[in-house]
Amino acid sequence: MKTLKIGILGLGTVGGGTYTILTKNKEIIEKRTGCDVQVARILDRFQKPDVPEYLYTEDPDDVLTSKDIDLVIETLGGIEPACSFMVQAMKHGKHVVTANKAAVAANYELLTKTAKENNVKFLYEASVGGGIPVLTAMQNALQGNNFLEVMGIVNGTTNYILTKMTEDGADYGEVLKDAQAKGFAEADPTADVEGIDVANKLSILIALAFDQYIPPTEIPTTGISAITKADIDAAAAEGCKLKLIAHATLNPDGTVKASVAPEKIANTHPLAGVSNEFNAVYITGDMVDEVMFYGKGAGALPTGSAIVGDIISVAKSL
Amino acid sequence: MKTLKIGILGLGTVGGGTYTILTKNKEIIEKRTGCDVQVARILDRFQKPDVPEYLYTEDPDDVLTSKDIDLVIETLGGIEPACSFMVQAMKHGKHVVTANKAAVAANYELLTKTAKENNVKFLYEASVGGGIPVLTAMQNALQGNNFLEVMGIVNGTTNYILTKMTEDGADYGEVLKDAQAKGFAEADPTADVEGIDVANKLSILIALAFDQYIPPTEIPTTGISAITKADIDAAAAEGCKLKLIAHATLNPDGTVKASVAPEKIANTHPLAGVSNEFNAVYITGDMVDEVMFYGKGAGALPTGSAIVGDIISVAKSL
Repeated sequence: MKTLKIGILGLGTVGGGTYTILTKNKEIIEKRTGCDVQVARILDRFQKPDVPEYLYTEDPDDVLTSKDIDLVIETLGGIEPACSFMVQAMKHGKHVVTANKAAVAANYELLTKTAKENNVKFLYEASVGGGIPVLTAMQNALQGNNFLEVMGIVNGTTNYILTKMTEDGADYGEVLKDAQAKGFAEADPTADVEGIDVANKLSILIALAFDQYIPPTEIPTTGISAITKADIDAAAAEGCKLKLIAHATLNPDGTVKASVAPEKIANTHPLAGVSNEFNAVYITGDMVDEVMFYGKGAGALPTGSAIVGDIISVAKSL
Repeated sequence: MKTLKIGILGLGTVGGGTYTILTKNKEIIEKRTGCDVQVARILDRFQKPDVPEYLYTEDPDDVLTSKDIDLVIETLGGIEPACSFMVQAMKHGKHVVTANKAAVAANYELLTKTAKENNVKFLYEASVGGGIPVLTAMQNALQGNNFLEVMGIVNGTTNYILTKMTEDGADYGEVLKDAQAKGFAEADPTADVEGIDVANKLSILIALAFDQYIPPTEIPTTGISAITKADIDAAAAEGCKLKLIAHATLNPDGTVKASVAPEKIANTHPLAGVSNEFNAVYITGDMVDEVMFYGKGAGALPTGSAIVGDIISVAKSL
């Protein structure tokens, strides 16, 4: 049987979820790929129970340049050193799988170019919409289409806050505090509520849909922190829900119009039913017309599911 | 540049839609696959305008056994001769792509075994949910999961009828007549309204989700022809919508519970918002939790989009 040796950079929430899936579902993954997928090395300072101590290292080179690693999972988060680590791993002939939207969006061209030059796979399904297999669909089953429009609810924290404001008639401030208490929002919620996280994901969606790279910093971005009960009520009066939408449209001249902003979505639109922490991406293609992908956009196991899907795709190609 | 020569069996609605996409989007398909995908032969008695006459043949062997064909698209519909044609094509080393749920569901084991034995690809994304890329996702990005449950709204005719009965308070008979007049229902609607088409699709979903083959004829199947306004109202009183659901659940003992029947779906469930002719498949995996795929389940171009996605997957693997 073939073997695929995995190195994991960062065994936090998502890295840990990935490790759990590779361990718990080892048998079915082996059956489906005909490949023994082994976690061979983990870069992390803090060790978890149930993970063998000998797997751990604090030296990045044990993962990035070691001959014993075939594929590197990057789940450190943040732009650096994540991006440099991924480049280094690819230059050493390793496939790279990541969930890191900030690093991918900031360095999309460098990362995809490095993968091509080194003839390795660079996969990042987990970076947009967590467990929802939308990027894979855009890169494979939907490839007969010219994409015309992409609309996404791709941040669970803001969708949870807007849902609660809509359903309970509560204030933004109250709901944010409640979300923080429940662990649905970070202590510093800026990246979520100001739309920065969504802009990262939209930059990636645009690259795949329109083969154009727009840095997230160049996407006009408005978050939800200024949304009031009055805004929610005004939308409801028009038969709409307010949603934070990652939105990109192909212009007739081939350029792309992109924005991250709260939008009124008609209650009859499939995106209007996407509530609480759920995510969805709604795509229009010139042939398939409209398709929507829905599911959990975050969490250890859903996001791990997307990473493992990417690993399986590499394993099948061996 | 590599070349992939295509033979099409039957240039009806779906075959015609596929031809349109391969022609209109030729450039982008070439760019994305690095492969020149050429329609080389068409088996059909009736010729269409805009399709070169020299492509046509009435001799199946010109497609099935010819050395000039690499991949056969089967869009004849019906179980035979479609199934025998697909087997013959695979035995002659041709990849096969089909939209034919009846043929795939009736002969799943024969067709997948023949593909394996002859080392060719047998792909049938278009057979369930038209343009919705759900089968590809189950076979690839979601493969890290043990699937636990599959629920699908996979027949546009019955979903249209139930939606109109719900929204307009109309009788089954009235709505069916209206649907037939509008072309949303066939003159003989039996296969749709009695759930036979849905059972075919469920058999395919079960094979992929649970690696078990249950012939469609062995799935307990109830259609919608006995649904009354009173049933719709009773569901509404419970905060539900009546939907014709293809439903399969993994039992703790590893067997699968399968049914096709009208079910009350809570208005808060993502499937409740799937209206009119739209389709959706809702899948629960042990790791990804719940995901849903939504889109157009029929029509020349959406279904053609799924077929072209399968062709592209073959082209990329060359």
